[in-house]
Amino acid sequence: MATVKLIEYAAASPEVRTVYDDIMATRKTDWINNFWKALAHHPPTLRRTWESIKQVMAPGALDPLVKEMIYIAVSATNGCEYCIRSHTAGARKAGMTEAMLGELIAVVGMANETNRLANSYQVEIDEPFMK
Amino acid sequence: MATVKLIEYAAASPEVRTVYDDIMATRKTDWINNFWKALAHHPPTLRRTWESIKQVMAPGALDPLVKEMIYIAVSATNGCEYCIRSHTAGARKAGMTEAMLGELIAVVGMANETNRLANSYQVEIDEPFMK
Amino acid sequence: MATVKLIEYAAASPEVRTVYDDIMATRKTDWINNFWKALAHHPPTLRRTWESIKQVMAPGALDPLVKEMIYIAVSATNGCEYCIRSHTAGARKAGMTEAMLGELIAVVGMANETNRLANSYQVEIDEPFMK
Amino acid sequence: MATVKLIEYAAASPEVRTVYDDIMATRKTDWINNFWKALAHHPPTLRRTWESIKQVMAPGALDPLVKEMIYIAVSATNGCEYCIRSHTAGARKAGMTEAMLGELIAVVGMANETNRLANSYQVEIDEPFMK
Amino acid sequence: MATVKLIEYAAASPEVRTVYDDIMATRKTDWINNFWKALAHHPPTLRRTWESIKQVMAPGALDPLVKEMIYIAVSATNGCEYCIRSHTAGARKAGMTEAMLGELIAVVGMANETNRLANSYQVEIDEPFMK
Amino acid sequence: MATVKLIEYAAASPEVRTVYDDIMATRKTDWINNFWKALAHHPPTLRRTWESIKQVMAPGALDPLVKEMIYIAVSATNGCEYCIRSHTAGARKAGMTEAMLGELIAVVGMANETNRLANSYQVEIDEPFMK
Repeated sequence: MATVKLIEYAAASPEVRTVYDDIMATRKTDWINNFWKALAHHPPTLRRTWESIKQVMAPGALDPLVKEMIYIAVSATNGCEYCIRSHTAGARKAGMTEAMLGELIAVVGMANETNRLANSYQVEIDEPFMK
Repeated sequence: MATVKLIEYAAASPEVRTVYDDIMATRKTDWINNFWKALAHHPPTLRRTWESIKQVMAPGALDPLVKEMIYIAVSATNGCEYCIRSHTAGARKAGMTEAMLGELIAVVGMANETNRLANSYQVEIDEPFMK
Repeated sequence: MATVKLIEYAAASPEVRTVYDDIMATRKTDWINNFWKALAHHPPTLRRTWESIKQVMAPGALDPLVKEMIYIAVSATNGCEYCIRSHTAGARKAGMTEAMLGELIAVVGMANETNRLANSYQVEIDEPFMK
Repeated sequence: MATVKLIEYAAASPEVRTVYDDIMATRKTDWINNFWKALAHHPPTLRRTWESIKQVMAPGALDPLVKEMIYIAVSATNGCEYCIRSHTAGARKAGMTEAMLGELIAVVGMANETNRLANSYQVEIDEPFMK
Repeated sequence: MATVKLIEYAAASPEVRTVYDDIMATRKTDWINNFWKALAHHPPTLRRTWESIKQVMAPGALDPLVKEMIYIAVSATNGCEYCIRSHTAGARKAGMTEAMLGELIAVVGMANETNRLANSYQVEIDEPFMK
Repeated sequence: MATVKLIEYAAASPEVRTVYDDIMATRKTDWINNFWKALAHHPPTLRRTWESIKQVMAPGALDPLVKEMIYIAVSATNGCEYCIRSHTAGARKAGMTEAMLGELIAVVGMANETNRLANSYQVEIDEPFMK
């Protein structure tokens, strides 16, 4: 159970409904997941976070599937269960195959390992990497 | 300065040189960066880490540039300066444009934010994300 | 289930009971939460941790509610479910309104985002911040 | 040195200057710190991050000094040097005394310790904390 | 439920069975825990991770019990529930007493606290520590 | 430069000098490292932290060298440069050989990797690990 009451559409203020409507229209779905229903506890955070996500996850120089996989990489590194599960589902919907997931997780694992190897030995940065 | 002595090629044992030679051949370069020279302090870690990186970063279901960007995402989340700098250089060499870098970092930032929003409210996982 | 047996008051040694009694007296409650019952597995850790918490969370230059909110901020950043839930309950008891919680979490989210933006670009520290 | 070129006011596009002007007006200063000059590398991230920070850090149910201290708590937990230094400077400017800083850091330290004690023993959440 | 299907021995490919057989032989057990059944979703990750763990956790300059305790320390710091529970079980099997567990966790807690005290004040490194 | 003034022995209050004297006596040295000089900015934190460290790092069920290595493992995972360097020096002084350091760091690296593999796939905990 969340630490705040989830706000369902039927109980939402007009300000919150406007965001919910935009989420459903943008994602071509009739469903709002719990993350947004929790943020609705504080409407300015709901609106700001949705506007930011909508901007950041839109197609651009990177395609949406790559963005979803980056989201998984960060969420796995931070150990956020909600985000790992929701973005793994999102990436699969966006076309991620099981082979792609396997390689993604392998890279996430190795990066977490080598980050700590570099930390542990306090490796000094090579001059060419400072340019 | 690293906490261990960096092993230069000239001072390296045959076992270490074999790894260095494979790194230079695989990367088509005549240069070994400090990370490997620090790992050479413990040859089994040098060999194992290189074999793992070589396998994990090779082209496959994901292309090498996407893999480099995932590496940046993890390293930025962990705050590993060496890894952020070396993989930003590596991703640029592999074709990452400045627009791609900008979008990558924007996703990394938002994922770190929403990971903590989900944590903070202890949002319960939606049933469809459990399938 | 915890990885160690929780020590109930009835089963506790005199040394552990002394700490439990002080927790209940200080907090004006007749209840010991599981965190302390787990620490009681190692009595020196129980006593030291309680003495430290008692000192650190007492009113001083910062009021106890601000301290509870700082605890939530750290716990959400680390993703510690037990600590998020217990300190959210504690902060509400100390007077945190839902509006205050909303703003607190918004700051926690943004700080986690901008920490990674600063990391990602390896922004150099401005001279005035070094004074 | 940052991994991207810092954009100075004189070299900035009109879009970037508009954000810089708003930062200086809001903060009543004639100075832009390096964080924003790095974000200007990707103008949508600059604008979005500034609009978010302006909203989140404004006075509300929590006063700006408390918000600055929460920022320090998160940044210290994540180990972000830039953010620790800039927000410690910001909090002092907003009125944080040395005694307040001392207590803030003491709470941050203890929270990081007890988060790991709770993790280590996998303490189960008490029923009253689930309400 | 994991985000990928767990691969049971009966349903495993010959490549996966070879790894499972080696795990059981090395650990003198007839049981495969879920971690490996999940990795089997991506056989190259299963094989590489097992080969690495087998090498790294073998007796050497450090004995296996110390290695298991280091694993707990890292896992508790990262908050990985699976790893905390599996390595706490593993360390007990390798001879860790309850007193040893209590001291281990106390050190993990203090290290996490003092890491953040050092971060918070941005303590400069003493010259003798740079040698 | 630290964000607070380092307190040298000559300028220290009697309360701070008492702690400094105990540090030097306990460690059989005539030198105080910067960490303590920064904590002296807030004397209650200095005293409490030193008393805790003295208790936690003393010989017990685990020997001091193992405790120093656990400190390195946590500090490398958190990326705390000050703590990595000071405890690597401390562990060497306590008898850690270069081979031991190499194996320690190898375990730290693998634990960080497998923590994220377990997170990424959200591996469910085996029933035997819940006992």
